[in-house]
Amino acid sequence: MEHPENSDEYKGLAVNSGVVSPGSINPYFQSRRKSRPTLSVQDYVDGIVKGNVTVLSQAVTLVESLKPEHQAIAQEVIEKCLPYTGNSVRIGISGVPGAGKSTSIDAFGLHVLKDGGKLAVLAIDPSSERTKGSILGDKTRMERLAVHPKAFIRPSPAAGSLGGVARKTRETIVLCEAAGFDKIFVETVGVGQSETAVHSMVDFFLLIQLAGTGDELQGIKRGIMEMADGIIINKADGDNITKAEQAASSFRNALHLFPPSESGWTPQVLTYSGFYEIGIKEVWDMVWSYMDFVKKNGYFQYRRNEQAKYWMYETINESLKNGFYHDPEISALLKNYEQEVLAGQQTSFTAARRLLELYRKN
Amino acid sequence: MEHPENSDEYKGLAVNSGVVSPGSINPYFQSRRKSRPTLSVQDYVDGIVKGNVTVLSQAVTLVESLKPEHQAIAQEVIEKCLPYTGNSVRIGISGVPGAGKSTSIDAFGLHVLKDGGKLAVLAIDPSSERTKGSILGDKTRMERLAVHPKAFIRPSPAAGSLGGVARKTRETIVLCEAAGFDKIFVETVGVGQSETAVHSMVDFFLLIQLAGTGDELQGIKRGIMEMADGIIINKADGDNITKAEQAASSFRNALHLFPPSESGWTPQVLTYSGFYEIGIKEVWDMVWSYMDFVKKNGYFQYRRNEQAKYWMYETINESLKNGFYHDPEISALLKNYEQEVLAGQQTSFTAARRLLELYRKN
Repeated sequence: MEHPENSDEYKGLAVNSGVVSPGSINPYFQSRRKSRPTLSVQDYVDGIVKGNVTVLSQAVTLVESLKPEHQAIAQEVIEKCLPYTGNSVRIGISGVPGAGKSTSIDAFGLHVLKDGGKLAVLAIDPSSERTKGSILGDKTRMERLAVHPKAFIRPSPAAGSLGGVARKTRETIVLCEAAGFDKIFVETVGVGQSETAVHSMVDFFLLIQLAGTGDELQGIKRGIMEMADGIIINKADGDNITKAEQAASSFRNALHLFPPSESGWTPQVLTYSGFYEIGIKEVWDMVWSYMDFVKKNGYFQYRRNEQAKYWMYETINESLKNGFYHDPEISALLKNYEQEVLAGQQTSFTAARRLLELYRKN
Repeated sequence: MEHPENSDEYKGLAVNSGVVSPGSINPYFQSRRKSRPTLSVQDYVDGIVKGNVTVLSQAVTLVESLKPEHQAIAQEVIEKCLPYTGNSVRIGISGVPGAGKSTSIDAFGLHVLKDGGKLAVLAIDPSSERTKGSILGDKTRMERLAVHPKAFIRPSPAAGSLGGVARKTRETIVLCEAAGFDKIFVETVGVGQSETAVHSMVDFFLLIQLAGTGDELQGIKRGIMEMADGIIINKADGDNITKAEQAASSFRNALHLFPPSESGWTPQVLTYSGFYEIGIKEVWDMVWSYMDFVKKNGYFQYRRNEQAKYWMYETINESLKNGFYHDPEISALLKNYEQEVLAGQQTSFTAARRLLELYRKN
């Protein structure tokens, strides 16, 4: 795997500035030349803790690397960064393509940066290889954030298993927090399983919707609405205001029928316009009042702890499964066993038992 | 583990009748004396395929047994029964305690048996050890089914892990189908994870609800409503009819906002009264029209195949996890590692990696 930010072009960038130079584009997309990391673990940690965004960006690339030697450095860097982390609010932002996520994030980012602090915008999109163009596009659509001195935008790690991609994003959160980013947005595309992963690493899950024709949720996977701490209907401007309000009212009715959320918080439904910047403040007043609410009732820390445990157990379970399903003998037999189960020649349980016996014998 | 149905009292029962003697109570609950299975695998299979309910009941007890020698026989019996299975409709019935499940199942059972065939009523309740009384009570509350010559009622397997209990119920379905039961109800309590397990073994998932005060779903776990193919509001009788209709209309609005189900079926909401037997036919007309719909569009077989695969992979995954978490060295260290993760001394991922390295070294 290449590490283009270590290339000569990359090194030509202003490494010592605390922030990305205005107008600079993530060099990850600019160069493909092979090179090696030249910084030591301590260099990375020092750079990150000082808020050097170029060093941060290099460290994130190590996190994303599949090379074992890069992973080894990355893990050490992350571990040494841990004492500097946790001081942020993490917000998941989801919505189907076309809902206006990038424009909204641009407006939201500008809004939350008005009060100071620094914002990192990350993404989880396991399909990113196929849609690389659009993700780069996303970034250029966040026109003002892309050049904001206090913002750091990082596209989704390259495609891979959802677990792998999510893990990298979660580790990137650690690095960003150590670099002093106190607001983290994690964007996801709203049509797949990524939402569960994002939900497992953020404090607040914001779902962007559009007013539709009564089938607002057609594009949204089952279960996503139940994760939302806030649903916001975009494009509530001009002729569209009434429709947006009607959609909001439908969502409110639907949410009313859901069981109460674990946090004790009642999900809110608001309308806004990302493009015309109407209602942005109200959206963020909601998010901040949620943060107050869950910090007071203890749920904020409780959920962070649960998430930390979740990722430990999830990583273990994934690794156990990978060991089994990538075993050459097992993977050669698996489809046959599955066929026999489907043909009623053996039960699901017998097939499982026989495969496990084989695996354990090896 | 005891096998009371092999005791002398049990053997005194009419073993040759194709059905349970009217008025007989499941002997599982009557005797605690120790004894051994005396039938051969072929005896079990022959008895089951002939529809001998006493043999069926003995075989189910083997399925539920934790003894390896019983499990070995059980698995052979199940495998030999496989060619006779699959010819049933399987309906999951869920609802919170107090929703009137037993009374409803009694009425539903009588209704579906009017057209002939045989009905097995099974249950999944991993908490059954604690509530043994109420499950036995449930059975006696199914007054008419309990003495119906074409009905077989079997309480939940004894408490254990959800996976274990669910697996036993799924294996019991195989045996019941081989014994000619063409309608299978699988009951669950509506407050936990059991619904996912039931959903993974039935063709139709029926959710019993009560009209409430706008917080109808307070007792229902998140995600359960999205599994329902039909929601039925019980106790729509007398003064309660208007309230029940209002609840139905709320649920319809809520369901309207859900994404479409994979089957293409739109979940229906009906009101009925289990006790006064109002609207029972309509509930079952809905179930049968679902069956027609999914048999025509191919989803019925597709889902059964997916379920067979699900249980194979689920069993493998559970077993891999059990191997890890029950490893003495791992389980001794796990809590410490978890504490270090929570204290920010290592990341979730590092903790996972270290534990896995340890496990694989052993």
